[in-house]
Amino acid sequence: MTGANSSPLRVAIAGLGTVGAGTLRVLRDNRDLLTQRCGRTIEVIAVSARDRKRDRGVDVAGIPWFDDAVAMAREAPADIFVELIGGSDGPARAACEAALSARRHVVTANKALIARHGVVLAKHAESVGVTLAYEAAVAGGIPIIKTLREGLAANRFTRVYGILNGTCNYILSTMRTSQRDFGNVLAEAQALGYAEADPSFDIDGIDTAHKLAILASLAFGTPVNFDAIHIEGIRHISLMDIHLAEELGYRIKLLGIAEMTDNGLQQRVHPCMVPLDAPIAHVEGAFNAVVCHGNFVNTIMQVGPGAGAGPTASAVVADIIDIARGRRTPTFTVPASELAEIPVSPMARHHGACYVRLIVVDRPGVFADVAAALRDNNISMEAVLQRGRRPGETVPVVLTTHESDEGAMRRTLEAIAALDAVTEPPRMIRIEPF
Amino acid sequence: MTGANSSPLRVAIAGLGTVGAGTLRVLRDNRDLLTQRCGRTIEVIAVSARDRKRDRGVDVAGIPWFDDAVAMAREAPADIFVELIGGSDGPARAACEAALSARRHVVTANKALIARHGVVLAKHAESVGVTLAYEAAVAGGIPIIKTLREGLAANRFTRVYGILNGTCNYILSTMRTSQRDFGNVLAEAQALGYAEADPSFDIDGIDTAHKLAILASLAFGTPVNFDAIHIEGIRHISLMDIHLAEELGYRIKLLGIAEMTDNGLQQRVHPCMVPLDAPIAHVEGAFNAVVCHGNFVNTIMQVGPGAGAGPTASAVVADIIDIARGRRTPTFTVPASELAEIPVSPMARHHGACYVRLIVVDRPGVFADVAAALRDNNISMEAVLQRGRRPGETVPVVLTTHESDEGAMRRTLEAIAALDAVTEPPRMIRIEPF
Repeated sequence: MTGANSSPLRVAIAGLGTVGAGTLRVLRDNRDLLTQRCGRTIEVIAVSARDRKRDRGVDVAGIPWFDDAVAMAREAPADIFVELIGGSDGPARAACEAALSARRHVVTANKALIARHGVVLAKHAESVGVTLAYEAAVAGGIPIIKTLREGLAANRFTRVYGILNGTCNYILSTMRTSQRDFGNVLAEAQALGYAEADPSFDIDGIDTAHKLAILASLAFGTPVNFDAIHIEGIRHISLMDIHLAEELGYRIKLLGIAEMTDNGLQQRVHPCMVPLDAPIAHVEGAFNAVVCHGNFVNTIMQVGPGAGAGPTASAVVADIIDIARGRRTPTFTVPASELAEIPVSPMARHHGACYVRLIVVDRPGVFADVAAALRDNNISMEAVLQRGRRPGETVPVVLTTHESDEGAMRRTLEAIAALDAVTEPPRMIRIEPF
Repeated sequence: MTGANSSPLRVAIAGLGTVGAGTLRVLRDNRDLLTQRCGRTIEVIAVSARDRKRDRGVDVAGIPWFDDAVAMAREAPADIFVELIGGSDGPARAACEAALSARRHVVTANKALIARHGVVLAKHAESVGVTLAYEAAVAGGIPIIKTLREGLAANRFTRVYGILNGTCNYILSTMRTSQRDFGNVLAEAQALGYAEADPSFDIDGIDTAHKLAILASLAFGTPVNFDAIHIEGIRHISLMDIHLAEELGYRIKLLGIAEMTDNGLQQRVHPCMVPLDAPIAHVEGAFNAVVCHGNFVNTIMQVGPGAGAGPTASAVVADIIDIARGRRTPTFTVPASELAEIPVSPMARHHGACYVRLIVVDRPGVFADVAAALRDNNISMEAVLQRGRRPGETVPVVLTTHESDEGAMRRTLEAIAALDAVTEPPRMIRIEPF
């Protein structure tokens, strides 16, 4: 192929945890295939990690070792520096900057790094004429970065959303199928290694928001803006709500959603009621899914493993292959210097339907008080149903509303919470109209 | 970006049917966006179609017109020749050959052309140093060619399969949801323009096979081999079988499946019983879906519109963008000259479970005769159930088998068909173990 480079591609890998070891394994197990597909060999010429003695299930003997990732980024004569250390700052960031300064391409799986410093790093990469690639940073093995930047690049995007955190989806799926509550399933997930000892990063929606920020930048050609994201996690999702959702024809999913509205770009992470006839409702367990709406392609959904050594390494190596083949794409669909600020549509201006679940004392007049609170805030009710009958005791009451403004809904919830008969804080889950 | 070309990219479009008009519309409506994403403008410098006067809903005045696509391929000073004429031979093929001879890149949506002549055309393109691109040829708007060639290129593929024909999926879905038989739904689909006046290309599985041949070549690095594909369509699928499938926990889908077996590469197109807990069972209506199994990524599924002006044009323009950006990928993941012959595993060597539905006279001894036919061919039965009880009259009987050889199953069906009590040819549908 004209202009193709056939000399070996030299790769240095920093971070030999699950994904680092997986990447070494892909490069070894599929070596001949990769050579054929790239038209050149890919050689690992250096590795770096903290503990040289740890058994990683893959042999690193004979590969030059660096204790210090930054030193490796600077000194090892690599074409590509692969950053698999993790963390938005610290050695990961310092090593990527050192690699770019040495004019090495950077491939990273680090969503926090890209979500926080992606634009600065991209400008650095572009200024020295190298690639910053991060396919593995979002949705693991799903090639969603390539899909947005290339496969669907003919489209103006209107909405991108997805299940972006496998731990949360696993917990929500397992709660439903095993009839166990949040704390119980989380503890099990931690014991099995599916969830971290400190799970807040996953279950409070931060990880989903990191990935959403990257997808939004790509889809809408605007600088990554993590701080603009409204974030809610899944700690408050109860088994009762999961059951009631199912009764109403919905499934509860933690979604990251970026969409262009009349007021600007809205980015939000929160539990959603997804209709059971939407394909994404059936993406269960640790799987991820991303849905893209474009003005010509309409809707494309991609489903796959969102984490794990093999799938994440598959994405890391896809980036390496692109570089090996000499294929380059602007970092965020357009070069970082051309990213345009778009007005942020704040969550207070969100407009949508809601599910609200109350615990109320079962006595006459309660419905009237709740209905009055909705009326006073100009919110139109779609349905209200009481589950069970226990005069004088507490029972769940569920109501669904037609589309209304977030601000009005919040005022309504405050008014309802203040009612005597309402014994627990109301739980609101937004209904997404797929 | 280093080496990027910023001069306008000149495109000539042959064929102004649905997809051709859609492509013009993408290039116009998203012009500014495309210029930004490509770093250069895309100019349509010539078009060709048979009827100059037809209203296509898009203005072609002012664009130089050719009545003859081959003359345009030869003479119009285009960088890219876009072939949207259709048909495996005739003017489509001649025009692509002429364009390649004139050293123009070729972008085509023509599955029949690539399935029949893809390797020869690819060698021609590679010999003159231009690109042959065909994202739109398989699964409409789903970027599956890019996914196999690039996004998942780190993987050795073990299996690729999918719902590749929207017309068939629409018919099967509608039969189930509307309780109508095949002929009735087909007639409606024809009236609505979803199915052709001569529907055999779709419903007999040929179109699915064209697409499968292309996917198999890409996934397994072997020359496109349409003639190796075992093909069955959906004409014989009855509403009864659709209902019985549902009762047994399956949904009937027409799948194209390419998989590496111990005997070689097996490619087959036939109706399948898909378990209801497999995500692909829930891809309904005119949607397409493709599932890729790779040795590291595990399973990726992509779902989207498999046809239509917008989605197909989205794929055509994605190819144009790749060329505009100077991004090149070997035609079938590897260059055409490096495609390797793989032994063909014939359908007679297929090994799998089956659903068999009989119409039998309800009288003692029938089960024993059927069971004996299975035993004589060494086929192990999983379940057998009679639906209804009508002594002396005919009733449906369904049996499912454990995995067995295709040859043994065919002999068994012949033996069962020959039984006195069996009044109609047995219907066999293979069960896929997703």
